[in-house]
Amino acid sequence: MTGFPQFNQPKIRVGVLGATGAVGQRFVQMLQDHPWFELSVLCASQRNAGKRYADACNWLLRGDMPPHLRDWTLQEMAPGIDCELVFSALPSEPARVIEAALAAAGYVVCSNASAYRYEPDVPLLIPEVNPEHVGLIERQKSERGWQGFITTNPNCSTTHLVSALHPLHEAFGVEKVFVVTMQAASGAGYPGVPSMDIIDNVIPFIGSEEEKMERREPQKLLGKFDGQAVQMADFVVSAHCNRVPVRNGHLAAVSVEFAQQATLEDVRRAWDEYDPLPQRMGLPSAPQPAIVYREEADRPQPRMDRLAGSIPGMATVVGRLRSDPLLDVKFLSLGHNTIRGAAGASLLNAEFLVSQGFLGGERISVEKKFQEANTVLAASH
Amino acid sequence: MTGFPQFNQPKIRVGVLGATGAVGQRFVQMLQDHPWFELSVLCASQRNAGKRYADACNWLLRGDMPPHLRDWTLQEMAPGIDCELVFSALPSEPARVIEAALAAAGYVVCSNASAYRYEPDVPLLIPEVNPEHVGLIERQKSERGWQGFITTNPNCSTTHLVSALHPLHEAFGVEKVFVVTMQAASGAGYPGVPSMDIIDNVIPFIGSEEEKMERREPQKLLGKFDGQAVQMADFVVSAHCNRVPVRNGHLAAVSVEFAQQATLEDVRRAWDEYDPLPQRMGLPSAPQPAIVYREEADRPQPRMDRLAGSIPGMATVVGRLRSDPLLDVKFLSLGHNTIRGAAGASLLNAEFLVSQGFLGGERISVEKKFQEANTVLAASH
Amino acid sequence: MTGFPQFNQPKIRVGVLGATGAVGQRFVQMLQDHPWFELSVLCASQRNAGKRYADACNWLLRGDMPPHLRDWTLQEMAPGIDCELVFSALPSEPARVIEAALAAAGYVVCSNASAYRYEPDVPLLIPEVNPEHVGLIERQKSERGWQGFITTNPNCSTTHLVSALHPLHEAFGVEKVFVVTMQAASGAGYPGVPSMDIIDNVIPFIGSEEEKMERREPQKLLGKFDGQAVQMADFVVSAHCNRVPVRNGHLAAVSVEFAQQATLEDVRRAWDEYDPLPQRMGLPSAPQPAIVYREEADRPQPRMDRLAGSIPGMATVVGRLRSDPLLDVKFLSLGHNTIRGAAGASLLNAEFLVSQGFLGGERISVEKKFQEANTVLAASH
Amino acid sequence: MTGFPQFNQPKIRVGVLGATGAVGQRFVQMLQDHPWFELSVLCASQRNAGKRYADACNWLLRGDMPPHLRDWTLQEMAPGIDCELVFSALPSEPARVIEAALAAAGYVVCSNASAYRYEPDVPLLIPEVNPEHVGLIERQKSERGWQGFITTNPNCSTTHLVSALHPLHEAFGVEKVFVVTMQAASGAGYPGVPSMDIIDNVIPFIGSEEEKMERREPQKLLGKFDGQAVQMADFVVSAHCNRVPVRNGHLAAVSVEFAQQATLEDVRRAWDEYDPLPQRMGLPSAPQPAIVYREEADRPQPRMDRLAGSIPGMATVVGRLRSDPLLDVKFLSLGHNTIRGAAGASLLNAEFLVSQGFLGGERISVEKKFQEANTVLAASH
Repeated sequence: MTGFPQFNQPKIRVGVLGATGAVGQRFVQMLQDHPWFELSVLCASQRNAGKRYADACNWLLRGDMPPHLRDWTLQEMAPGIDCELVFSALPSEPARVIEAALAAAGYVVCSNASAYRYEPDVPLLIPEVNPEHVGLIERQKSERGWQGFITTNPNCSTTHLVSALHPLHEAFGVEKVFVVTMQAASGAGYPGVPSMDIIDNVIPFIGSEEEKMERREPQKLLGKFDGQAVQMADFVVSAHCNRVPVRNGHLAAVSVEFAQQATLEDVRRAWDEYDPLPQRMGLPSAPQPAIVYREEADRPQPRMDRLAGSIPGMATVVGRLRSDPLLDVKFLSLGHNTIRGAAGASLLNAEFLVSQGFLGGERISVEKKFQEANTVLAASH
Repeated sequence: MTGFPQFNQPKIRVGVLGATGAVGQRFVQMLQDHPWFELSVLCASQRNAGKRYADACNWLLRGDMPPHLRDWTLQEMAPGIDCELVFSALPSEPARVIEAALAAAGYVVCSNASAYRYEPDVPLLIPEVNPEHVGLIERQKSERGWQGFITTNPNCSTTHLVSALHPLHEAFGVEKVFVVTMQAASGAGYPGVPSMDIIDNVIPFIGSEEEKMERREPQKLLGKFDGQAVQMADFVVSAHCNRVPVRNGHLAAVSVEFAQQATLEDVRRAWDEYDPLPQRMGLPSAPQPAIVYREEADRPQPRMDRLAGSIPGMATVVGRLRSDPLLDVKFLSLGHNTIRGAAGASLLNAEFLVSQGFLGGERISVEKKFQEANTVLAASH
Repeated sequence: MTGFPQFNQPKIRVGVLGATGAVGQRFVQMLQDHPWFELSVLCASQRNAGKRYADACNWLLRGDMPPHLRDWTLQEMAPGIDCELVFSALPSEPARVIEAALAAAGYVVCSNASAYRYEPDVPLLIPEVNPEHVGLIERQKSERGWQGFITTNPNCSTTHLVSALHPLHEAFGVEKVFVVTMQAASGAGYPGVPSMDIIDNVIPFIGSEEEKMERREPQKLLGKFDGQAVQMADFVVSAHCNRVPVRNGHLAAVSVEFAQQATLEDVRRAWDEYDPLPQRMGLPSAPQPAIVYREEADRPQPRMDRLAGSIPGMATVVGRLRSDPLLDVKFLSLGHNTIRGAAGASLLNAEFLVSQGFLGGERISVEKKFQEANTVLAASH
Repeated sequence: MTGFPQFNQPKIRVGVLGATGAVGQRFVQMLQDHPWFELSVLCASQRNAGKRYADACNWLLRGDMPPHLRDWTLQEMAPGIDCELVFSALPSEPARVIEAALAAAGYVVCSNASAYRYEPDVPLLIPEVNPEHVGLIERQKSERGWQGFITTNPNCSTTHLVSALHPLHEAFGVEKVFVVTMQAASGAGYPGVPSMDIIDNVIPFIGSEEEKMERREPQKLLGKFDGQAVQMADFVVSAHCNRVPVRNGHLAAVSVEFAQQATLEDVRRAWDEYDPLPQRMGLPSAPQPAIVYREEADRPQPRMDRLAGSIPGMATVVGRLRSDPLLDVKFLSLGHNTIRGAAGASLLNAEFLVSQGFLGGERISVEKKFQEANTVLAASH
């Protein structure tokens, strides 16, 4: 995490909504020593508000809860909390109410919840894929009369699928996608999947996951922002979603058909030459490269590759590119589901918002490299 | 196992080639108390020939090695062994030589090895699917000048895929198949997959498995016997094969396109009404029904359903039938890989050969139900 | 399950308390086709009472919920339910109230809950180990003024430890026991242990389990009934309890010191010659033998041996008997935790109560073998 | 890894014997960017000698094989290889011959093999525990007429047990130890434990492991060097060793009896104040602290704690200290088996040898802190 643009000013104060859960803990973990953000408030449900963080939170991640946070008092999730931006690790239902209240009151909400993902005026954002979708924010604020706003990131399994597809869609036009996921237990949160269900087993069903992957998310993510709205991309996805006895890392077997002819070499080159905006801008949490290709015949594998890349858990890993007898090509994609698939996604969104001046006007002094990147983005609007 | 045709004569003496391995042990286990077959000889490689079975064989299955077999002496795999029929659990390379030698010398060889599966004069047999392929046997014997003959069964993952597809192919014509497997560790034999590779992991590669599923086996299995040769069925398969941390039971996510229109109800009815020959004949190892449909949203699951049905491990279990956005329908199929996917497949083949008079001429007194079944078969030739 | 005493009269009507949970399902499963008992009522908490069993119960066991039970209506757990005996799969807290209410009203309660295990007038019963403890029942009824009564079975990990120790205690006097358990996930009920906690891990703590094994249960189980009370056995146990990534089957590493000298051969003989009362009486759920010894250097193993013996899951399996450098001998013990460790334990208790005339006076016509067994028991009082 | 003594001179050239195996790879991984050592040669068996490292080695560790090593040619393991010190990851049998040949020829051999562990003139070394055992080296060289010498480290399960016991033995005198291990799959090397054996299972046997833990290693490790030989410590160990479905990290349940009285607070203080020589000297691979105590009721756990401490995988983690009903105290100990339990142990031994001047006379310029440590060591001789 070196070489990214430096602030001339104090760090931005941020909070975490749902800080005691599995994704909330990831936010907390990833915000330690962040160059731009300073964690200033931890929020939890009414049941836990007022408790010490150490008392309310069963720390699930390797290593310890950051010691200085143990005595922090959990706050209620309502306007008045001391920060400019909140990361939301809330379930969908409470997110609906709480995120709106905070956005209305002027907070920037970077949400991992699905509550607002499908609203036409809310960006469903992957900065590598659709940075220009931040153009929706102005409309969102004006139509809703909010002082702040909400951005969202996609579902964990969609994120890595679409990240792998993006350069191919740009180059050749994705028309059909067949995807079968083998998803990790942590994708179900905590306590999530009972061990009795998954030991020596696969559970071939994850509630509403196939709908998200088939119809709700990829078409919006790869859609074009026309200055007013996102025009959904026009391709068809068939998804089978499965839970496997793996702790972290969603693996997907993918077959794709393109609008234009593309050899395996063309596809490979599209990935190898992929250098999207967050990487060019050097955002702190943007992995270099964004997409890692494994050459081995049997990779990527969840345990071996879920932390691959320059920023552990933030890259999408692909491999086994080969011809598909039915569509054009087939390959594997893999990514960490609670890092880039959840907390890390919101965090990179927040960094991107900062880089675009959505927080605090003149606050940021952009460097030359950074300005160039902005120029590119402006052109792509 | 009641109600199948009774012999008027002594049981047929059978042997097992490769009796110490994982599949060999399944043969031994399934032949205990078999109504038609009597295990008379256990064969092993030169290294183990001459040893006691209990000394050479590390019993891997639940329960104990049948006690009366502990002191049996392992025989070399060569003509002269005391049996009429051999079940082969050999690896492909030794199978090539040994199975030919035994078939030439007059033995009936029911093989789980891949060595002869793709020979144009050797049946790749699933009695429910392509019973008329036994018509190749006559040609095989005459062209090769063999006294006996070889029949084979498919690869463990192909078996259950094709079993699930067969009634649909009969009714609607399969044109395209997309399949992603999640295969059990036992499919790699013993010692097979190292635990260090599979704990908390998926291995998205199984050597030559995708080739078998895409090009080599389904088209032959669903092909038509024209009296002289099998005319390959004309459909396209795309397969991704994965190894998951499951002990037994191969699960597959399948999408299919048909030549004729078929509603979900049509597909369901094709499975529900499926009553193929071995079931109608009441062969001892034919499960009733051949295909089990699970109604639950999250089934079949390997641990819960791999032993489903009237004869544990012999049925194919399907579920989650639904529309596919790209092809026509999608569903799950599951089956036990070392029972119906290996030893049980050869055993049912052997039973079918007996029912068709391939062993010992006048030996079998067929009952009425049995004769009817034969008539059906004759008509289907 | 053949050869046990036959009834001359109708089966005894029984109910299951907590029928939707993991242990409740085991009761339901084990009561199918029981020769003495007829399941007549399924009870559940207020939340589920009134629902169809199929709607309220997520069936966790291999195979299906017995089809004829799917439409049964779940009853409230209160006097008035149509049965003579109830099996309790309740958590400890509700068990405290409900079991007392039912016992007071005249029901026989065979409980797997810990609520009454440690009461001085309630039998903590393993029929092989301490059949004479049923002598407490009379006192319990008279002191509490109950029409019926409660018997309990021990905790799942204690059961198999004490079962393995019992013949050794009888022969040589157990003085010190060191035990480290490796317990299965199903011991925590359902949903129980989150998969995120146990994949690629061991959890070296199970709440209050060590206390039960060290101080509360073994001394009562191996204590002597003096006609009025149970005199606790006088030996010391040190226990470390661990949860491992295994679905079923609690394994324990055990070291023991005896009061009298005992060679390894003596210990082995004590197990081999062990033929306790339920086995001699031929109770329907009494495994033959009660203790299975595995000869292999690396057995028993949970997956291989948890269903060993004549009645799957009811036997205790031991192995690896060898000298201990600190105490006298060390060995392994293993048993199924939700069968003999829970539902099966209560069921065998109920069978034993029937055999002793605790249900329905003249109802049972005992055979000769049975009478002899009773004589033995009487003498042991 | 900062703050340790700096060399004034070039790094020491080192080789790895058995570089393609699981432990060999750990050596290679841990030697990247080592401040004192420079990897100069990779050696393999005759079968692989001459091959590219990338061709002969199936890299098992997370991340990639260091890219610059891919093209290195594997050397035969014989005198002439270009290095001063070799790390041996050989199996015991070849280690016997090869290590002797290299030591005779002047190489310093730091071996993870068991071949020479029990020789009276070969140090079985844990620098925290028995640094003065390096006094054996002089005798070894003179008696055997070798130019170089061999040091060894203990078996992976012994290492962490003895590390946890050492400060307690110093303070209170260990007299009796009861230990039950739950060991990770990687302890068996690669391919090691077949997945079919360990999925949903525990294997309660590891060949010769209990002998090593009971009689061969702890007593030598905690023995006193009298200037000529190691006088074995006089205490008794009872060990049960088990393999569990965990990838890395050996957990042990331990009970101990001391010669002197010790409260739980005394024991805890002994661990907390433990500051052995390698830590005081700041050796590059010495974790700070050497022993980590976890306060939680359910820790240490293999997946959560195997990489605990300042140098991942090098510390011993203890927890759950409590009174033992039979002996004095009981607790858990945990450590990484292929890092501190294997490659890391040899590496720290090598660093310690360097610090003591066993490699290259005047080469090392010791700093003040370093000299003090040496003084301490000298005094302890």
